[in-house]
Amino acid sequence: MSNAEVLPLLEPDGVAPCCPPLTERPLNAEEAERTAKMFKALGDPVRLRLFSAVASHEGGEACVCDISDVGVSQPTVSHHLKKLKEAGLLSSERRGTWVYYRVEPSVVAAMGRLLATAI
Amino acid sequence: MSNAEVLPLLEPDGVAPCCPPLTERPLNAEEAERTAKMFKALGDPVRLRLFSAVASHEGGEACVCDISDVGVSQPTVSHHLKKLKEAGLLSSERRGTWVYYRVEPSVVAAMGRLLATAI
Repeated sequence: MSNAEVLPLLEPDGVAPCCPPLTERPLNAEEAERTAKMFKALGDPVRLRLFSAVASHEGGEACVCDISDVGVSQPTVSHHLKKLKEAGLLSSERRGTWVYYRVEPSVVAAMGRLLATAI
Repeated sequence: MSNAEVLPLLEPDGVAPCCPPLTERPLNAEEAERTAKMFKALGDPVRLRLFSAVASHEGGEACVCDISDVGVSQPTVSHHLKKLKEAGLLSSERRGTWVYYRVEPSVVAAMGRLLATAI
């Protein structure tokens, strides 16, 4: 899977953000489609808690075993982690018994840039 | 309506952001509830286009007549603007014939801060 597929907020080079700050000019339809997916993925309280649990874990990486304390069942945790992966906000890797989830810092930075104010 | 109700991402003083960057520590349930609402509001392509149309308009303010060019009917535009208002992302004011929508810069800044990277 290429970076362009995993990280929809980035251009195919995997570095440049796709879209200008929301305060710079109106997004066009294609930019809005790409970007809305990521906001939607963070638009659920449980997913947001799981995302911040991974993002704030040492090294920006966490095992499912580290982040399940959000008051929902393990299958529900897995379901939400899958949604965050599909939105390109997390990547995962199996190492031994556990699956480790990692936040892509360039994606978080690209989302932050969208919300940067012109001031 | 107080600032605290209009701007859920800010503390009641209307200035301080409610929540730390997502990379700093896991959000608790209450913080995630407040924050997810705003991400959810931006998680729809049409709403995101309308929001960026207002945010990028001169003075961060736009009349409905300025921002209706997003390929949906006027009632649908009104519906989405109402959702953005309910999420605390836009405020509105009627002046003469038209309703003007305004982005609250401190709210955009608070959302940007959530996505600020530790790097």
